[in-house]
Amino acid sequence: MNSENMNLSKWADNNLPKGKSIEEVVSSLKSQEIETPSWGYADSGTRFFVFEQPQAARTTFQKISDAAQVHKYTGIAPRVALHIPWDKTDDWEELLAHAKNEGVKLGAVNPNLFQEDEYKLGSLANPDSEIRNKAVNHIKECIDIMKIIGSKHLSIWLADGTNYPGQDSFTARKHRLEETLAEVYNEMDESMVMLIEYKFFEPSFYHTDIADWGMATHYAGKLGEKAKTLVDLGHHPQGTNIEHIVAFLIDEDKLGGFHFNNRKYADDDLTSGSINPYELFLIYTELVKGYELKEFTPAYMIDQCHNIKPKIEAMIQSVVRLQELYAKALLVDYQSLEQAQKKGEVVEAEEILQKAYQTDVKPLLKKVRQELGCPPDPLKAYLESDYRKKIEKRNK
Amino acid sequence: MNSENMNLSKWADNNLPKGKSIEEVVSSLKSQEIETPSWGYADSGTRFFVFEQPQAARTTFQKISDAAQVHKYTGIAPRVALHIPWDKTDDWEELLAHAKNEGVKLGAVNPNLFQEDEYKLGSLANPDSEIRNKAVNHIKECIDIMKIIGSKHLSIWLADGTNYPGQDSFTARKHRLEETLAEVYNEMDESMVMLIEYKFFEPSFYHTDIADWGMATHYAGKLGEKAKTLVDLGHHPQGTNIEHIVAFLIDEDKLGGFHFNNRKYADDDLTSGSINPYELFLIYTELVKGYELKEFTPAYMIDQCHNIKPKIEAMIQSVVRLQELYAKALLVDYQSLEQAQKKGEVVEAEEILQKAYQTDVKPLLKKVRQELGCPPDPLKAYLESDYRKKIEKRNK
Amino acid sequence: MNSENMNLSKWADNNLPKGKSIEEVVSSLKSQEIETPSWGYADSGTRFFVFEQPQAARTTFQKISDAAQVHKYTGIAPRVALHIPWDKTDDWEELLAHAKNEGVKLGAVNPNLFQEDEYKLGSLANPDSEIRNKAVNHIKECIDIMKIIGSKHLSIWLADGTNYPGQDSFTARKHRLEETLAEVYNEMDESMVMLIEYKFFEPSFYHTDIADWGMATHYAGKLGEKAKTLVDLGHHPQGTNIEHIVAFLIDEDKLGGFHFNNRKYADDDLTSGSINPYELFLIYTELVKGYELKEFTPAYMIDQCHNIKPKIEAMIQSVVRLQELYAKALLVDYQSLEQAQKKGEVVEAEEILQKAYQTDVKPLLKKVRQELGCPPDPLKAYLESDYRKKIEKRNK
Amino acid sequence: MNSENMNLSKWADNNLPKGKSIEEVVSSLKSQEIETPSWGYADSGTRFFVFEQPQAARTTFQKISDAAQVHKYTGIAPRVALHIPWDKTDDWEELLAHAKNEGVKLGAVNPNLFQEDEYKLGSLANPDSEIRNKAVNHIKECIDIMKIIGSKHLSIWLADGTNYPGQDSFTARKHRLEETLAEVYNEMDESMVMLIEYKFFEPSFYHTDIADWGMATHYAGKLGEKAKTLVDLGHHPQGTNIEHIVAFLIDEDKLGGFHFNNRKYADDDLTSGSINPYELFLIYTELVKGYELKEFTPAYMIDQCHNIKPKIEAMIQSVVRLQELYAKALLVDYQSLEQAQKKGEVVEAEEILQKAYQTDVKPLLKKVRQELGCPPDPLKAYLESDYRKKIEKRNK
Repeated sequence: MNSENMNLSKWADNNLPKGKSIEEVVSSLKSQEIETPSWGYADSGTRFFVFEQPQAARTTFQKISDAAQVHKYTGIAPRVALHIPWDKTDDWEELLAHAKNEGVKLGAVNPNLFQEDEYKLGSLANPDSEIRNKAVNHIKECIDIMKIIGSKHLSIWLADGTNYPGQDSFTARKHRLEETLAEVYNEMDESMVMLIEYKFFEPSFYHTDIADWGMATHYAGKLGEKAKTLVDLGHHPQGTNIEHIVAFLIDEDKLGGFHFNNRKYADDDLTSGSINPYELFLIYTELVKGYELKEFTPAYMIDQCHNIKPKIEAMIQSVVRLQELYAKALLVDYQSLEQAQKKGEVVEAEEILQKAYQTDVKPLLKKVRQELGCPPDPLKAYLESDYRKKIEKRNK
Repeated sequence: MNSENMNLSKWADNNLPKGKSIEEVVSSLKSQEIETPSWGYADSGTRFFVFEQPQAARTTFQKISDAAQVHKYTGIAPRVALHIPWDKTDDWEELLAHAKNEGVKLGAVNPNLFQEDEYKLGSLANPDSEIRNKAVNHIKECIDIMKIIGSKHLSIWLADGTNYPGQDSFTARKHRLEETLAEVYNEMDESMVMLIEYKFFEPSFYHTDIADWGMATHYAGKLGEKAKTLVDLGHHPQGTNIEHIVAFLIDEDKLGGFHFNNRKYADDDLTSGSINPYELFLIYTELVKGYELKEFTPAYMIDQCHNIKPKIEAMIQSVVRLQELYAKALLVDYQSLEQAQKKGEVVEAEEILQKAYQTDVKPLLKKVRQELGCPPDPLKAYLESDYRKKIEKRNK
Repeated sequence: MNSENMNLSKWADNNLPKGKSIEEVVSSLKSQEIETPSWGYADSGTRFFVFEQPQAARTTFQKISDAAQVHKYTGIAPRVALHIPWDKTDDWEELLAHAKNEGVKLGAVNPNLFQEDEYKLGSLANPDSEIRNKAVNHIKECIDIMKIIGSKHLSIWLADGTNYPGQDSFTARKHRLEETLAEVYNEMDESMVMLIEYKFFEPSFYHTDIADWGMATHYAGKLGEKAKTLVDLGHHPQGTNIEHIVAFLIDEDKLGGFHFNNRKYADDDLTSGSINPYELFLIYTELVKGYELKEFTPAYMIDQCHNIKPKIEAMIQSVVRLQELYAKALLVDYQSLEQAQKKGEVVEAEEILQKAYQTDVKPLLKKVRQELGCPPDPLKAYLESDYRKKIEKRNK
Repeated sequence: MNSENMNLSKWADNNLPKGKSIEEVVSSLKSQEIETPSWGYADSGTRFFVFEQPQAARTTFQKISDAAQVHKYTGIAPRVALHIPWDKTDDWEELLAHAKNEGVKLGAVNPNLFQEDEYKLGSLANPDSEIRNKAVNHIKECIDIMKIIGSKHLSIWLADGTNYPGQDSFTARKHRLEETLAEVYNEMDESMVMLIEYKFFEPSFYHTDIADWGMATHYAGKLGEKAKTLVDLGHHPQGTNIEHIVAFLIDEDKLGGFHFNNRKYADDDLTSGSINPYELFLIYTELVKGYELKEFTPAYMIDQCHNIKPKIEAMIQSVVRLQELYAKALLVDYQSLEQAQKKGEVVEAEEILQKAYQTDVKPLLKKVRQELGCPPDPLKAYLESDYRKKIEKRNK
């Protein structure tokens, strides 16, 4: 036993809950796959301005190469979500080959139903049937692309809603949405999953057609087993207990996946774990508990509209933060927790969570990264890489 | 045609939408029955203090007499909701006779599942099966009372939830709730309706077991057709579009009723329509539209924790405000609205709502009150009444 | 006395508070001048998309012509706020002549300190002194323009803030801001007023350097009497009592003016009075009470980021809504209100407000518009105008 | 050097920022004194119910004994805040002797201005001058008590505000408050500090007279140097950046102290650090940075309305959490942080904070507790103590 292994062994003695082996925890951490979005490598911004970053990706090929860097240094980000038409190409084989060459795969497909003047009053719920058809056809096209590239997840986020009282009928829009969603649902292969995202507000400012988990799950329930609910961490009213919703969806077999990000006030503006990391830890504890009871495979995806941080650095930072918090959630002594809960020992139960949360997981993550062939400090390694230097002035 | 009728006729010409008669509108306004809660006539307060009002009711008999005053002057508050055990009696016949004598009926029954030390960790979702049984038995007792007094609505509000991360398992609590709710549901007569209320927070401060309309409707859906969702206007996160939720529930045949009140920040603290009357008007427009499409009979109930205003005055004020806003909602030209919506005329659609909202409905309400045998200004009439004088020093 | 005057006289008898004459109220309404922003006539949008409106203005000349339409039909929007550099011209005389010709004046000048890559980490509070200088110089340039065009108000809104914990030092930024603000303040003429705007969040998502009225008023206080606080109705946390802040600022002689708009959740997204008109009425009551006590001349400006409604229509609708609510605030019987307050009659006090709020002010506004030479229904008149038809396809 | 010291030395090498010694950090941690409130050892609850805990303190003597336990096991809670009249006694000498005997001192004095029927419409801002006088006299009495017991801090929290639009004049209330506050301020000794607390809402639900830090600081500024602002962590709107406010107040020499607690939605309901510990860490970083620049001595006080957890356990847990987060804040490499800020390296700056935040501070706190003569795990030690057993059935 070398000194590093001795250290890890000592760390395990101190920090692992009874009945859990270091191998088990490492294995869980190695198997978490976090998908990063192609658009997360390109410039983005607020309604006020989009700051141009000289190194930001501009083509889909660049985005995939950038995403591959995140996977190279973290080992757990092997897939890239696409946005159609932003990432559309005439030659998918070429793109697939590029991804393969870079060491990543293509992931979820995200239709764009909000960037045309015709969508001003909505897409799938638009009062005009021609525009609804246009939206349906666009999603069908996305399903065709999924078949070509072997994508499993159709990720539906709608900007649909209204800005003013009276603008449209809530009920009529609900009926339209039930109809158009069914139309695209029926086009999906048996292996595909439709992820239905909800959002409390914006870009609609009076009502959003799929405003909360309850509405998303209503639509997913009406459609069938291939439709599930997508939880975007930034899309809730202030004060919402997201981990409760996650537990609810797991129990109902309706948790489709996540869009990870963080926010202080409004929305999905900031990188994962940057404002309230404890909340993210608590969400992961629901997942860990869920996995012990049943099989389910939520899609772990990052979708954060950060516009100040350099893109690849921000993405590595986010993936690492998610990994740290998952690691901590794996260290919770759930047996003792359950005992404390049964006895109504509120302080003790909370301390069991805090103990795991406060654990220094660096030794554990070092081991995980070693096994994945990754450097112990992914961010540092990337910062020192040639790739970073190479793209520094990509757009100059 | 006397001058008053001429005036009303002129008013109708100016303000009624095409195709609607004054009789129709008056009839709708006469048929709205707003239930007031017995506890709304007794002292209430905040966690800091309960201010004692010399005229506040202390016995159930007093509460019913007070509620009868509200009905006497408004004509549309014929029922009183009860809270068990606050309003429990050994002699229900006596209470029924008292109510009849005062000119009102007994309404919804509200079990109390939060005012015993044993409920510290919950009632129907408590980790301890004995305490869950206690809660179940209490509700069964309430159902027995409903049978005696001929009550139709069982109104379930739970204080259940947790205060700290780790305190209990969300999923275990969900399972317990599904089980205990089913147990009481099965005790109900065919004619009874279980109203399931949701609340975003308080008195639980980390999570509430029935936190939003989605969860309430989940439980109601599992139980069956006799279970419906209760919308308390103060129980949502800031910024929530309540009228959207109301429309959604109507369309799903799950709108059980309302607890009317208003709030600026947190909760059900203030009297109906006191902070944002336009929101209440918009909620009523969904009801009016709903009634044109289908039959449904939501329970209109007031439940507002006001602690500064004199009780009967506050209740009359609330009933009048609700009536005014319902009246305005009846004046919306829904046909033109639908046309504007189809054309995507956002400004025009909003102006159609604003036109109705800004209408002076005094002449209309005068007519309604005349037909109901009530004074034109209910609050003024009560303020000048002997009853008010009589109870002024009831508790001195 | 013709029949119209008889009607108005009857209306006055019913609705005017004791001691107020119709002339007085009409005069107040005629003298309210609402400034509209040049950028409010051009396309705007969310971070997701900017919908192009075929009739939207693209040049400053067009914007001024459009603004003149709003004034033409409402009679109370005689000035147009400019945004530099969006509205910058080489020939200010030409622009002034154009405005004069259209019947409007140029109003507040708004520097732009957020639309250059260099401002990524802030403008007046940027850690880099060169960028701060750039910002200072831009504002000085704006002051020069103010001198040329005779503008009185320098309207300072900063996008400054940070997105992540640790990004910069709050204190260092505060010191920089105190310094740079002083530098531009000293350039202003005696007749000029610096309006300092606050904003709770966005485009900065972790902290905003001038986050609330307290910070804005701190800076205004340090600078001197020519600096005042600007209240943008959309820039507060949910639940904030804005009318309280307005009353506080009036009492401190620090109310510089308003940016009118409305919002349901986040920000300044919607047109004035569209979500909670009662709140706007309550704000106006503070102004009316203030005017009775002291002289102060807040700048009434519209700044609403509406992106669905046609621009001129939306602006007329907003001006009319503001006028209606001001009219209602003028009808409050403040003497009786004060009496009720002194007696602690909470219900009565509220009813005094509600009585004024619910008054039909159409007869009053008809009179006001008549005296101003405007049509009784400004929106309808504009919709039927040749101008509207003329610009319908301005951008096609 | 024994093995423990060797471990700590190794820990220091890994975790201390350059230029900081272990002694320095230990010394800072030993000198933080957290005051606990007498009322935090008694039963408390929500407006719905107060759960009785068999071991809760009922007399002031018991409360002080309980508080002494918290100090005994943590070593950093040497003072107990009092609430008058709850803790009023005829024999202050006796109480002082009791405290001394238990090893603690008496701290801040908190007047009670909300638990009498006369305060229904306010205390210091009440429209009735007699009630204002009553409130003023009560505070003067508190100042007299302060002189007797040697207390330094007069902690002013007002429940004053209104519940409904129109209930009272904001401006009149402001004037009254300025006057009454001055009256009590003038009674204070030179050594005393008036801490002015703000609260966003509750128990007033329409407006609070001292609603935010800006208003509190306005009153403190008008009064003079002996008046400062008290930051209660639970008294802000959702999304507020509290650390920004803290930094602002430090820079203005107006930070009087803290009421520590946490909340998920509304208020001061939960124990410190239980919902968002990272936020508390960020607040502490502002204090650490402040201490490097200037001398100031904020009062660190706990005030949390927790009603589920056993009282002493909850208080020890809170003190420990605060200590852990202060410890982490002391480990931030502020020099590197400043460098990163100057370079605009947003990711790097955030990682510097995260590194410190994620550090396992157990070895450091063990050392601190050793030097203070306290057990390494205060909560565990208390749970095993005779005292705990002794009071288990105190109220049975």
